[in-house]
Amino acid sequence: MDVSAYIQANREQFFADLKEWLAIPSISGNPAHHADVGRSAEWLAAHLRGLGWPTVEVWPTGTPDGPGLPAVFAEWPAEDPDAPSVVVYGHHDVQPVEPLEEWDTDPFTPTERGDSLYARGASDDKGQVFFHTLGVRAGMAAAGSGAPPVTIKLLVEGEEESGSVHFADLLRERRDRLACDAIVISDTTMWSADVPSMCTGMRGLTEAEVSLYGPSTDLHSGSFGGAVPNPLHAMAELLARLHDERGRVTLPGFYDDVVPLTDEERELFARLPFDEAAWLRTAGDSRAAYGEAGYSTLERVWARPTAEVNGMWGGHTGPGGKTIVPREAHAKLSFRLVAGQEPVKVQEAFRQWVAAHTPEGIRAEVRVPGGGVRPCFSPIDSAGVKAARRAMERAFGKEILFTREGGSGPEADLADILEAPLIFVAVGLDEDRIHAPNEKVEMPLLLKAAEAAAHLWDELATALR
Amino acid sequence: MDVSAYIQANREQFFADLKEWLAIPSISGNPAHHADVGRSAEWLAAHLRGLGWPTVEVWPTGTPDGPGLPAVFAEWPAEDPDAPSVVVYGHHDVQPVEPLEEWDTDPFTPTERGDSLYARGASDDKGQVFFHTLGVRAGMAAAGSGAPPVTIKLLVEGEEESGSVHFADLLRERRDRLACDAIVISDTTMWSADVPSMCTGMRGLTEAEVSLYGPSTDLHSGSFGGAVPNPLHAMAELLARLHDERGRVTLPGFYDDVVPLTDEERELFARLPFDEAAWLRTAGDSRAAYGEAGYSTLERVWARPTAEVNGMWGGHTGPGGKTIVPREAHAKLSFRLVAGQEPVKVQEAFRQWVAAHTPEGIRAEVRVPGGGVRPCFSPIDSAGVKAARRAMERAFGKEILFTREGGSGPEADLADILEAPLIFVAVGLDEDRIHAPNEKVEMPLLLKAAEAAAHLWDELATALR
Repeated sequence: MDVSAYIQANREQFFADLKEWLAIPSISGNPAHHADVGRSAEWLAAHLRGLGWPTVEVWPTGTPDGPGLPAVFAEWPAEDPDAPSVVVYGHHDVQPVEPLEEWDTDPFTPTERGDSLYARGASDDKGQVFFHTLGVRAGMAAAGSGAPPVTIKLLVEGEEESGSVHFADLLRERRDRLACDAIVISDTTMWSADVPSMCTGMRGLTEAEVSLYGPSTDLHSGSFGGAVPNPLHAMAELLARLHDERGRVTLPGFYDDVVPLTDEERELFARLPFDEAAWLRTAGDSRAAYGEAGYSTLERVWARPTAEVNGMWGGHTGPGGKTIVPREAHAKLSFRLVAGQEPVKVQEAFRQWVAAHTPEGIRAEVRVPGGGVRPCFSPIDSAGVKAARRAMERAFGKEILFTREGGSGPEADLADILEAPLIFVAVGLDEDRIHAPNEKVEMPLLLKAAEAAAHLWDELATALR
Repeated sequence: MDVSAYIQANREQFFADLKEWLAIPSISGNPAHHADVGRSAEWLAAHLRGLGWPTVEVWPTGTPDGPGLPAVFAEWPAEDPDAPSVVVYGHHDVQPVEPLEEWDTDPFTPTERGDSLYARGASDDKGQVFFHTLGVRAGMAAAGSGAPPVTIKLLVEGEEESGSVHFADLLRERRDRLACDAIVISDTTMWSADVPSMCTGMRGLTEAEVSLYGPSTDLHSGSFGGAVPNPLHAMAELLARLHDERGRVTLPGFYDDVVPLTDEERELFARLPFDEAAWLRTAGDSRAAYGEAGYSTLERVWARPTAEVNGMWGGHTGPGGKTIVPREAHAKLSFRLVAGQEPVKVQEAFRQWVAAHTPEGIRAEVRVPGGGVRPCFSPIDSAGVKAARRAMERAFGKEILFTREGGSGPEADLADILEAPLIFVAVGLDEDRIHAPNEKVEMPLLLKAAEAAAHLWDELATALR
């Protein structure tokens, strides 16, 4: 029985099981549902044991400060002790469901309508964790083997939707058990149902707050206006300098470490059917695209670093006028970083740049909360990405294109702590309404994903050797 | 008996009367004291009648919306029907007294300590209104005449400390009665007790609020950052453009109408013993003076127009980070204007400038609250200023220098509505602590001012013919 036939034969049981899991309201952001997150972990562990996974463990998380929510770990070793090992990452906790009245059916009563399965977590991320359980079995059935061709280490986190607060610690603690040659991430999206694609990276992030101080008190602008430095003027000048006239960030060295887009990746991006007018509508009806000169909108969002002012304030901000030279001005900034950039280097460059551009009579302070999130990236010509692309192409029967994610996530911790390359294999869609009412997943895509996952272990067994 | 001898002879009664008036808590900003403002007007009217002023009236103010606080009008006609007429402006209402515990003696129990007389209103402005009552009598006594050499029209407002809300209407209503050839303002300060001076102008003021709108909602900076216009970036760029590298305001035509400082006025300003380090301490310990290149600090504050950002806000301003492209940004600005500039022209220039510098994809809105305050200015070589300077020099026995005021006030309405030049004759000091606890006035200066006022009518009778 080939992979596809096995998957079709087990289709009904697969969705019946998934629905059982989706019925558990494992909302990690709501303490009232923390017991449900525990039930969700136990349900998954029991299910994996029932499917024959040789090792299944529920891993508690937490610190001396308080308990965290459990992750599930399951391992199915390859027969060949020299076979590569692969960690598969997903999460079993889900987003809150408010506003409940906007759901057409109960979020924890999984409901099929056409090809769609509606439930909180259907796409993000229970459905996408679950296709792996079917994929492994389909691969073994097709090969007539009792074990997969690579050692699979499934790691299903329980705190992703509440900030993955204990995840990095868990990875460090369990580093030996999680040793691997590659990490498969199944928690992202494809371009569209018709245009299957793979993500190859996520942007990193670092934040900063800058404060400029002038006089020790707000001054009467009649008595002093025009004769002492105004911190709001200094802030406007400082932030206006942050970009040049080509939309490039002016911090010295900001682009030095950036891994440039290859011609091939740009060409593949350009083949995605991108409708800029429709995209602008999703961007809060923005009236125009604007960004770094020489790059397309998709390139700007996915593969170019940014400096963004997120908030700015100072002086009189209430009703009416107040003719003052204010004592201080503040701004919050964030930098999205791409392959090659280090958050701490950017933080240091920002500190130096602020110091260099603070005018006489103004005192500047820069605060940086935390170390930031590193970008993650897998080149499209790397062995793992090429193998996964072949697996996807075998399942979907068409060319797989590439995307990236503009946001930042705990995936960077996986790559950094486990020291292995990331491979993004996922079939979520932008229209799955994750984090919103009426979340759903396309059932045919989950089956395609299971098929791709079955092929993936074959491909990786060869590619990673 | 000459002017000085008359004043010395009447010194005690003068201060006894002033203390009686100062004991009335005529706080216009506090409705609980509005009856006291009425009593203050009646007291002054009765006192002036007692001094022989031929016409004394209490003028009610107010609109159909509600009553205002009364002004006092008194007229003493010259014998010669062709003599010039002069309006003398002051106010009889006072500032609130909180915090009361910081006063060394009760604010409404006038108390002498050395040469100082302590009471709320002693300097601002009852004492400065009152020296005119003594000055007129001294002048007539010295001339042996039953009338002054010019027709004097004393106008003592009751709402100056609460925004002069009905003052312009009052002036328009009573325009015929107030017809005059000059307006003497006794509500400002001199450089110092040792360096007597005259103010020659006050800056005008106009305010504006600008809002920049981008996406219809805050956007996730991971998904959209770097690819759509950010209103905070646009605001920083807009406001950074407001001044050039020489500290000049960049609105087209902004300086076109400015009456330039004359060499003589600059030279006289430069002779004022200005201690910039001490001034910076009063400027909230500002670390450096900064302003339009080519002008001194005093010139910048007194005689050059400014554009000042008073407040600015947008995006996330609370604790922690929020990685958004915000939907909007706001700023409040004020422009101080000098002789020759029109608030409405500056408002229009600002609107056009904002429109011209709003980037693609951003929508701008400019709101202008009211018509602004016009600047007022009397050239130092004008007949009225020269006459008043001679009168001051006769009283003080030394050269009188010139200052201006950086702030803005209702004096501009007087000049505009009555269509007459302003002459500032006043002896308040910066250290009189007006609007603060322990307000006081220097009694010897009030007597010098009375002497100057006595000479003033002689000088103006000739100069204004």
